[in-house]
Parts: sequence; structure tokens; C-alpha cells
Amino acid sequence: MEESLSSTLVAAPVRFETHPSRYVHWRLEFAGEVARAVMDVQEDRPLRPGYPLKTNSYDLGVDIELADAIARVRFEHPEVRVLVLTSGKDRIFCSGANIYMLGSSSHSFKVNFCKYTNETRLALEDASAHSGLKSLAAVNGACAGGGYELCLACDEILLVDDASSAVSLPEVSLLAVLPGTGGLTRVTDKRKVRRDLADAFSSLGEGVKGKRAVDWRLVDETVPLSRFPSRVAERAKALAGSAPDKAGPGVVLLPLDGRYSDDGVEHRFVSVKVDEAARTARLTVRGPEADEPASAPDMRERGSALWALRVFRELDDVLLDLRFNRPEVGVVVLETRGVARRVLASDEALVANREDWFVNEVLHHMKRVLKRLDLTARSLIALIDEGSCFAGSLFELALAADRSYMLATEDGPTIALSALNRGCLPTATGLSRLEQRFIGDPAKAAAPLGEALDAEGALRAGLVTFAPDDIDWDDEVRLVVEERASLSPDALTGMEANLRFAGAETMETKIFGRLSAWQNWIFQRPNAVGERGALTLYGKPERAKFNWPRT
Amino acid sequence: MEESLSSTLVAAPVRFETHPSRYVHWRLEFAGEVARAVMDVQEDRPLRPGYPLKTNSYDLGVDIELADAIARVRFEHPEVRVLVLTSGKDRIFCSGANIYMLGSSSHSFKVNFCKYTNETRLALEDASAHSGLKSLAAVNGACAGGGYELCLACDEILLVDDASSAVSLPEVSLLAVLPGTGGLTRVTDKRKVRRDLADAFSSLGEGVKGKRAVDWRLVDETVPLSRFPSRVAERAKALAGSAPDKAGPGVVLLPLDGRYSDDGVEHRFVSVKVDEAARTARLTVRGPEADEPASAPDMRERGSALWALRVFRELDDVLLDLRFNRPEVGVVVLETRGVARRVLASDEALVANREDWFVNEVLHHMKRVLKRLDLTARSLIALIDEGSCFAGSLFELALAADRSYMLATEDGPTIALSALNRGCLPTATGLSRLEQRFIGDPAKAAAPLGEALDAEGALRAGLVTFAPDDIDWDDEVRLVVEERASLSPDALTGMEANLRFAGAETMETKIFGRLSAWQNWIFQRPNAVGERGALTLYGKPERAKFNWPRT
Repeated sequence: MEESLSSTLVAAPVRFETHPSRYVHWRLEFAGEVARAVMDVQEDRPLRPGYPLKTNSYDLGVDIELADAIARVRFEHPEVRVLVLTSGKDRIFCSGANIYMLGSSSHSFKVNFCKYTNETRLALEDASAHSGLKSLAAVNGACAGGGYELCLACDEILLVDDASSAVSLPEVSLLAVLPGTGGLTRVTDKRKVRRDLADAFSSLGEGVKGKRAVDWRLVDETVPLSRFPSRVAERAKALAGSAPDKAGPGVVLLPLDGRYSDDGVEHRFVSVKVDEAARTARLTVRGPEADEPASAPDMRERGSALWALRVFRELDDVLLDLRFNRPEVGVVVLETRGVARRVLASDEALVANREDWFVNEVLHHMKRVLKRLDLTARSLIALIDEGSCFAGSLFELALAADRSYMLATEDGPTIALSALNRGCLPTATGLSRLEQRFIGDPAKAAAPLGEALDAEGALRAGLVTFAPDDIDWDDEVRLVVEERASLSPDALTGMEANLRFAGAETMETKIFGRLSAWQNWIFQRPNAVGERGALTLYGKPERAKFNWPRT
Repeated sequence: MEESLSSTLVAAPVRFETHPSRYVHWRLEFAGEVARAVMDVQEDRPLRPGYPLKTNSYDLGVDIELADAIARVRFEHPEVRVLVLTSGKDRIFCSGANIYMLGSSSHSFKVNFCKYTNETRLALEDASAHSGLKSLAAVNGACAGGGYELCLACDEILLVDDASSAVSLPEVSLLAVLPGTGGLTRVTDKRKVRRDLADAFSSLGEGVKGKRAVDWRLVDETVPLSRFPSRVAERAKALAGSAPDKAGPGVVLLPLDGRYSDDGVEHRFVSVKVDEAARTARLTVRGPEADEPASAPDMRERGSALWALRVFRELDDVLLDLRFNRPEVGVVVLETRGVARRVLASDEALVANREDWFVNEVLHHMKRVLKRLDLTARSLIALIDEGSCFAGSLFELALAADRSYMLATEDGPTIALSALNRGCLPTATGLSRLEQRFIGDPAKAAAPLGEALDAEGALRAGLVTFAPDDIDWDDEVRLVVEERASLSPDALTGMEANLRFAGAETMETKIFGRLSAWQNWIFQRPNAVGERGALTLYGKPERAKFNWPRT
């Protein structure tokens, strides 16, 4: 199954760019400081044929629109302070991820689907924490599984009190899988539901409603149907009150217009070239072609053509392309090209203007894309060679890599740090990549900024892994890529998921580490996905048959 | 495979009690403040037939002895301040878990084996942190995989510098699995090896030796063979210097002499009764039969017959019996019987005398057993009924349960807290079970001590989940146990592994959450355990064949 489906995916690649004018499943409505994202899933328009999207259930196509909507509200509508998520259906808020889609997907697609939807929900929380864009789940009907998990990512949850609408996490009892889109983690760690109540709730198919839902902290308030719209408006206004002002018009995110082929992707600043036989890809990121604007008004005028925004939007796009459309690529070689001085100047301008709302958005966008890189389950090897441009924000690529190789020759490549490496682009653990790299030697995290380091200096500073000279370079690089590509993709995924997240854990890392790792395990188990597994048999007359040994 | 092997396990149960006089694979040698645990595995004496234990590799039988040795040093040899772990073989320290054993074991056995060995290594670290018993790995030969992971659990690692002995984690490259006995986590989070070096190290089959091993922080020192014994003695002495004095002779851990049958286990204070058809077990813990001693000398004289020590040793034994010998039991009902006043007095005496080394050991032992309960992948339901004795330390069982039910009748059962519930018995997260329960409502963690609460009071205090009256009790309890036992054992394991560990993460919880969850996933993947998987084919002439899609 795995192989045939992954071929299907290659045959019909997923594209991640969209626009509100093309949304099928969501409507964005704007009214001053409040925007509404209305989920109204078109049953007959799933991303792939074969599963109707009944009862406001979602697939990747639905979530791609939601991710786009959140990004556009942040960039294009700075006046919006509250995003109300609600349903356009009668008596149904959202029934979660489509089960037939899950049941018929390959393991790797399921895992990547969950990762993407998790990232989308974290983007909502990121907007709340860093953009003054709060979110309110206006649960105007039944809310199950991934539907409730979406609510959990919001700042507030209002549930209609109509004697039937409940919130529920029926995954364990109905499907023998977990509420893996952050559900279990957010119930205990964000909403701080008592663990025994969380246990009762998470094993109760029918869910919890009314006063009990409030008492158990599952929702913030229940409101009778008649008062629901006015109470939602009231709560939205109250949430908006705490957000900061953002001056000026929004910045429109123009299309990237990448060129996609079997061999890779070509964007203006980012390209990927795939070697299918070797199962490797070469990802090249290019620096600015000229000096970038330095003042906030100039940067805002440049808009989505601003290098720092465009290059990371392009990077995001190719990372998603790699994840979903090229599942067999095991090693991604990270390269940069360009003029370090221009990148450092661009970084400096971003830091100097970070109080500006647009610049703030650009920085948080860069941060999110780099987190997406950290979470990309491919081996990442940075090559710092002749002509490379691993400076400042682009040096984060080398820091995110599992290893980096830097060419040691006279007048060879150099690297340099900028203020952006010092905490503006934190990883999911909350630490900067420098801090995380040097948890055993914190003094090294304070390496000087702006100074060009050659291979010897970079090696001494602990900023690169290996520094072969020009005699060894080709062989050593070829060998490491070949060797890496030959190892078990599963063992590497597990290894990287451990080594990349040293030190402190946060709710975010718990979602991707603990919760996702368990879910991935369950997604492999016959009790869920076997011929008589609960996920496989969902909706069919047969009952699931379980193997009973506990692990 | 899973089913046939689990039946084998039931047919030949594993016993966890042992004694140095019966050790097959380890020797304990005492010389004043330094003890040596010498690993000298007898190749022809595996726990189960079918895999010779070559090159000082270990199986569960080997690790049961190590766990016993650590416990005995702590209780029976208070004069020991340093435990030196070394090998009795020439040029081989330890080659890790036996691969043929892993390759031929069922999934649930592999997972439980790893959990147990992880707990044993954590016991070493616990001894260092709380008993003034430091540990030194004297690596006198090749040290691979689980062998190096054992070293990582020690305070210091000395590697012989003989031009051939290396430390290595070859799991990923040779076996397509992870160094899952804490290896990846301790490399980054304890030894704080830089993540790119950790990556290089963990994908390098042959390992790292000499100066590079020190530079990369993998070992603390390398020492030429000629100076190795004297340097080990020197370092042991230096480590011993920092340990506190412990007065008086040791306390011998006498045999428990449990009676084991197909239906369960009978100990003096703890019994388990299994209902095989229902896949449930009733675990009953009884309080002291008379008043317990109150002073440290009296407690020490009582020795291993002290209720608090004996009851938790018995509990430990039955938990391990459940895990390994009764894999199909899905729900464990936790009951207590006895006189609450006596338990509270015993708790009080422990707290009052916790500065005494023996009492300190008893408390940390209780803590470790309760952590073993937290990590037991069975649904735990506490029943607080007529005649129960959920007071103080025994109330931790109810707090560790996934849910608790308390009978609400006039003159019905009561519960009570003691000082032991307030941080003396922390979970792996570092929080007490009360703190963890009330992370959303911290004031409730300060519930009054000693006060007898009936069902209504306990419910109000948030200390129990549900409180049915005597009309509903039987039906409600029967229903919840039946329902729980009917759900997918995998989904429940994943759910419980998430809900039981709310809030902060520590290295310990990362090992069981992130690392183990990924390892369990890999232990299911065809690339490791399929017909052509690397673990399956280890030692055979065929090469593993991988499916390449990355997740």
C-alpha cells in the first residue's frame, strides 16, 4: 500500500499556494477588527478523489486554505485583532480529519498530513502570542476530534448550549488512534484539564457538553443558541481590546509563481534539484540580488517582494513540496549563494525595525519556516563551499542542518553571524539554534557578530561540523551523502527527531516529539490500520478485532 | 509472531527476585568505599534458549541482576560511595543488548525489555543524585550500543586508550533501530554533546576513540592500558570524596517469597488476581498489620520487614510480573485494604527521619516503584470502596491511576493525605502527583494533610474522579472496567503515555516519551523487523532491503 500510494502522490503533486479567491472550503469575512474564518467544507471537492468530505471534515486541501487564511490575515489585514473560527454548516462545527482519507492514505502521508495540520494550529497560537491576533472558536454545533483540536489552538472556546452540541475526542474509542493534532497535549498542558478528567473525556466517544464541559475546562463558556451570535461578538470585542495597534495598510502576499517539474522546483531565490536515483535533493537559497531597503516604510513598500519575506516563502513552499511530493528523497543538501554583506544588511534592517508590525511579521514568518525545516524528516547536510552565502539568517540553515561541511582553502568561503542568530528566530524549544547547539558550552553561543570566519575559525568556534580541504572535499561530501542516503529512513527519522531537539521541551516540542511519535507508532499498528483494524473498518458493518498484548 | 511469543512468555514466566549468590553474569566486589560491578556475561546462559550472549551482550536476565546489584549496594552497603562498572572480559566492555534476542522477540517484549533496562539505568542516576552513590564506567574494551548507554548513565566515563577500544552507537547504521536505552537523549541532554557531533557519532558504526572521544564529550578521559587500573582507582576515590557519611550497618533485603500462579501473585501485603477472560487484574495493597516503628534505629532494625519497604518491593515485583508475564491484562484495578491511621503514622515516621540514610533509601525506593507504576502501560483504575485504605503514601496509587472511583455512602470510605504526598515521591517530571494533577489549579495541591475526606469532600477537593453512590457503584465500576478493556490496547497506551505526563518534561520523561515512542515506532517498521529488515537480517549474509519513503 505504502509504495503504490506514494507513487500516486508523485503522480499528482500537491501545491500549497492558494488565495482566498480560490478557496473552496473556507470563507474569510472582514468587519473591522474582527475577521471570521468560516469553515464550510464542500463535500464533493476533496483533494483526491475517493472520500466525500462529509460533516465539515477536513483533508489536506482544507487545511492548506486555513494556513493561507491565517498568513493572509497577519500580512494583509493588520487591522484585524481577532479571528473568529466558526462553521458555515447547520449544527455541525467540524468533525475533524476525514477518516476515509486517513484510512486510505499511506503511512508517510498520514504522518505528514498530521505534521502539517499541527503546524497550521501552531501558526494560530503564534499569531496570538506574537501578532496580537487573538482567536476565538465559536463552536456552533457538534465538534469532534480534529474539530475540537482546532478549537484548542484558539485563545477561547465558546460552545453553543443547544442540548446536543458537544466537544469530543472520539479517536481512541472509535478509531483506535490518538487525537494527534495536539489534542492530548493541549488538553493537559494548555487548557490544564485535570488528567483523570482528560482521561475520561478522551475515552468517551460522545463527548462532553454544557456545564460539565466548562467545569472540566474543555470550553470557556457555553451559550444558548439565541444569545450565541451576540455573545461571540462580545467575547471577540473583549479579546480584541488587548491587541496592539498596527499602522498602515496591509501587505499583499503576491503569488510566487514557481516552476515545478519532476526534477525539482525553481523559485526566484530558492531552487531544489532532485536526483531521484540517489534519493537526494540539492536545495539552494540565494541572497538578495541588490541592496535591500533599510527603513520600515521602504520595507513595507517593497511588500512581499522584500527578499527576507520572499525567500522564506519560497523555502516554505519547497519544504512542503519535498515532504509531500518527493517522499523518497532522504538527504537534502543545503547550499547558499550570494553576497553575505547584503544578507547581513537585510538582517540588520529587520532587527532595527522589528517594532514595526510588518517587519515583526516577516521575522515570525522566517522563524516558522525554519521550524518547518527543523521538523522536516529528511537528513539535512549543509555544504559551505565556494560562492556560498551562509551569513546571518541564512546561516540558520547550517545551524538547522544535521551536519555542516565547510571547505577549508585559502581565500575559501566564510560564514558570519548576525543579530538574527541571537534569539530572533527561536526553535520550537524556545532556544535559538546557537543556544541549543551550545547547551554544553554556553560561552560559544556568544560568538561575535558580523565577523567573517573562514573554515578554521568556524571549526574553532564550533559553528561547523567538519572542514575538509580541497583535496578531500569532493570525496568526503560524496561519501557522507551516499552513506546517509543508504541508511534506514525510519531509523534516521527517529534519530533526527531526538538529536534536533536537545534540552528543554515546550508544549510545541511535546506535540511533535511525544504525541506525534506515539501516533506514528499507532498508525503502524494492526489494531488501527490492519485489515481488521478500527481505522480500516470505520463506517463498515464489521467490528474491529484487536490483538490484546499491551506493550 | 506476536501472539505465539507472548504465549511462550506466559508459559515460562520471568521472575525478578535474585541475589548476588545466584548471579550468573555479574560479580559484585567490595573494597571499602568502592564497589565494583563486574560484567562477565555467560554466553551459554541466556534467559531463554536460542541466542548465545556473545561479547558481553545482555538480555533481560543480565539486567535483572544489575538492577538487583544497584538496589543491594544502596541498602546493604551504606559504606559504598562509588560503584565502578567494568567488564570481566578481555578487550570487550559490553556490546549492548543481544541482537538475536531482540530480533526474535515479540514487539511487546522488546518494548518492555527496553523500558526495564531504562529504569535500571535511571536507578543508577537516582543513586548518584539521592544516595551519594556515584558511578564510574571503567571502559576497559570495546563499548557499543547498550554498553555505551550504560556508561552514559554513570557519572563519569573512563575509556582505555589502546588504539582499538571505541565507544559507539551503531544501532542506526547496523540495525536500523535507535539507541533507545536513553542513548540519544543522554548524549545531547546529559553529556551535552553538540548536536552535529552527536549526529556524526550516532550514524558511525565504528564509533569514536581516543582524543576525539574526549573532544566530543563522549567520554571524560582516555587512559593508556598500563595506567588504566590506577587511574580508575584515582577517579573512584575523587568521586567518593563528595559523598555523605552513612552510619551503621547495611540493611539486608530478604526474599519476598511470593506465591505465583496462573491466577496471580500472593505477597504478604500485595496481591494480584487476574481474570484472564476479562483481561483485567485486581491489585490489592494492604496497610501495616500493626503499628510501625517510629524512630530511625527501630526502623533500621526492622530492616526489609519494615512495611513501607516491603510493601513497595512487593508492589514492584507484581508490576513487573504484570508487564512481562501477563501481557494481555489491559486494565488493572487498584484497591487498598487496612487501617489508614497506621499508614499515616508510617508516613510520618518516614518524613521525620528522612535524614537517616536508610529511611532516605526507603523513600527513594517508594518513589521509584511509583514511577514504575506511572510507566506501566495498562489502564489503572483506583477503586476507593468499603474497607479501603487510600491514605498518604497509598493514596499515591489513586493519584497514579488514570481515574479513581470513590463510593459515596453514609459512613463510607474516606481518604487522607500525608506529608509524603507533598513532594517526597515525585513523578518523573519532578512534580509531585498532587502538583501535576492540579497544574491548572495549584491551590488545590495544598489540600490539608491528615484530614479524612469522604466521597463528597474528596470530589470537591478534586482528589477523586467520580463518586457513585451505592445504588450505582457496582454497575458504574463494572461498566468502566469492561469498556476500558474493550478499547484498542495500542491507542490506550499512547493516550495514557500522553495524559500521565502533563506539564514539564525532564531528561527522564524525554527518554520514555520522545525516545521510547520513536523506538517503539521503529520496532514496528518493516525496515527494522520485516523479513528483509536490518534487525531481522543481522548476522546473516543477506543485506537489508529498505522501503525508502520518509515519513
